[in-house]
Amino acid sequence: MTLDLSADVVALTRALVDLPSESGAEGPLADAVEAALTALPHLTVERLGNTVVARTDLGRAERVIIAGHLDTVPAAGNLPSREQDGRVYGLGACDMKGGVAVALRLAAQLAAPVRDITYVFYECEEVEGERNGLHQVATHRPGLLAGDFAILMEPSDAGVEAGCQGVLEAEITVRGIRAHTARAWMGVNAAHRAAAVLQRLADHTPERVLIDGLEYREGLSAVAVRAGVAGNVVPDECVITVNARFAPHRSPREAKEYVRGLFPPEEYDEFTVTDVAPGALPGLDRPAVASLVEHLGVTPRPKLGWTDVARFTALGIPALNLGPGDPSLAHTAGEYVPVEQLRSCERQLGEWLGAEGA
Amino acid sequence: MTLDLSADVVALTRALVDLPSESGAEGPLADAVEAALTALPHLTVERLGNTVVARTDLGRAERVIIAGHLDTVPAAGNLPSREQDGRVYGLGACDMKGGVAVALRLAAQLAAPVRDITYVFYECEEVEGERNGLHQVATHRPGLLAGDFAILMEPSDAGVEAGCQGVLEAEITVRGIRAHTARAWMGVNAAHRAAAVLQRLADHTPERVLIDGLEYREGLSAVAVRAGVAGNVVPDECVITVNARFAPHRSPREAKEYVRGLFPPEEYDEFTVTDVAPGALPGLDRPAVASLVEHLGVTPRPKLGWTDVARFTALGIPALNLGPGDPSLAHTAGEYVPVEQLRSCERQLGEWLGAEGA
Repeated sequence: MTLDLSADVVALTRALVDLPSESGAEGPLADAVEAALTALPHLTVERLGNTVVARTDLGRAERVIIAGHLDTVPAAGNLPSREQDGRVYGLGACDMKGGVAVALRLAAQLAAPVRDITYVFYECEEVEGERNGLHQVATHRPGLLAGDFAILMEPSDAGVEAGCQGVLEAEITVRGIRAHTARAWMGVNAAHRAAAVLQRLADHTPERVLIDGLEYREGLSAVAVRAGVAGNVVPDECVITVNARFAPHRSPREAKEYVRGLFPPEEYDEFTVTDVAPGALPGLDRPAVASLVEHLGVTPRPKLGWTDVARFTALGIPALNLGPGDPSLAHTAGEYVPVEQLRSCERQLGEWLGAEGA
Repeated sequence: MTLDLSADVVALTRALVDLPSESGAEGPLADAVEAALTALPHLTVERLGNTVVARTDLGRAERVIIAGHLDTVPAAGNLPSREQDGRVYGLGACDMKGGVAVALRLAAQLAAPVRDITYVFYECEEVEGERNGLHQVATHRPGLLAGDFAILMEPSDAGVEAGCQGVLEAEITVRGIRAHTARAWMGVNAAHRAAAVLQRLADHTPERVLIDGLEYREGLSAVAVRAGVAGNVVPDECVITVNARFAPHRSPREAKEYVRGLFPPEEYDEFTVTDVAPGALPGLDRPAVASLVEHLGVTPRPKLGWTDVARFTALGIPALNLGPGDPSLAHTAGEYVPVEQLRSCERQLGEWLGAEGA
């Protein structure tokens, strides 16, 4: 399979969709991307697993990283691609082969950009964080990610979604004493006790936090409740799994203390954080970010979900989400990317990166 | 395998324990019981599946049913039987091969009791009600269960436990609207809503109902709570399984209305009764019951759990639980039956049934 980077961005998006690359099976697509980029004399290409990194090296004052993941969730009867009513439909069209197509077009066209560019096409974004290609590069070849500013081409409706919220998952365990239901008074019902914890969740009003003029709306949700031993037994344990989204002004440690502090200690027995991922500050005051936002003429929005921009933030690199496609269509069988957004993203980023000094 | 009904009740209990008869595998034990009873000229024996019914037919004014189930729960490392410190240990020793041994001894000894006796040794009491041998006889050969009074030899510490409470199991479903947890406000969290239902259960004070001088203590317990779609999804359904124990003055219909009435309609979406078994009134005013209680010189206690006495009640036959063994040991790996209770049950029932007119 050969990718023709001189093709129109729409044709390229369709070609990418039609080369399936479910997480863990990105090999053929990574091969095609590597081959296409290696053919370009202005780029230096390296590969790590199924992640391909390509760089210009023009000695510019600033270096911009443009990153997009190659993998998709499993197919849902949405292959091959099709074009209809100004949209490209198909697995990954929105999340995020449309964005990858834009980045590949920029890589081919911008032989002498005004800012040096590092393109990162990476594997395993849709699965556990340990396999994530960006994480692998940051761990094993951190020098490849040196840069002043990162653009993650996650779908953002071609607008700028700045920073991202953090995620914390915790298990709140309420205990009781097991007993036969015919003698329920001899026990303590953990499910009954759990009412207090669930009521705290129901009563909680999440905060709305303003950072750089963007409102991050936090959230706190019970995502699972599990209790039950047998049909005639008073349960001695009830576990409530909580998913919290916290604005990026809180560190993971602060988020943990904040969430834990919402529950009076006498109402539960254990509070265990099972996963936490830091948020990312929008960084709209950084010169490169301000320049891009001004060039695009858009009003940045806060990113409420979690994305890999948080990884760049952790590396000290300001980052934002900017890519074609409606983020709410990600992972849906009917996902698509609007042709108009593919073209506008390619044009606007190309202008910002290359027009002045090419 | 041959059962020696002339053996001491302790030896007979041990022989029964050592002939495993987990529910559904009662065949060999039923064969042995049938053979031993058929050898007794004063009994007419019939068999239905693995249930054995044996009757005297002396034309007495009253007929008493003595019933016990042959099956046990699965073994738990508690075979073979052993005797220690005045107790017989082993699978089913308490629930209820001790009681079966007493009944078999009575069947062998009482050739001319003052009351006609129908012995019922039945299968599948520990599993779903449809397979229950007593239910099968009541359905297919109801005439075999004709009688004025029934003694169920379930463990009751050799005392009289009268009547039994009813059981109602219901599922209370609370619904919501699914949403991504990063935009939780776009959904309605069913687990959060369920707090109200669980709090009603926590706040409910079960009634204590006095019938024939016996206090039946009701109960209402959440026995299971289930909610959860995925770690980042606001759940749209939470199902609370409730187990209610109701005093025998309530019919199943009344119990259902009573339990449902505890929950304001706006706090849940569905209330489904998944199982209900009626209770049984103690019937202490019936002459045969009063006679037995007086003979034993005991103070009847209320039965809080559900037993097959309710089946007899449904057939219009007053019934009580009277058998050796501590009911709280049933289904435990360490279950045992006290030798003294085996002997006292055999002696007292023998006196009441046979001593006067043999």
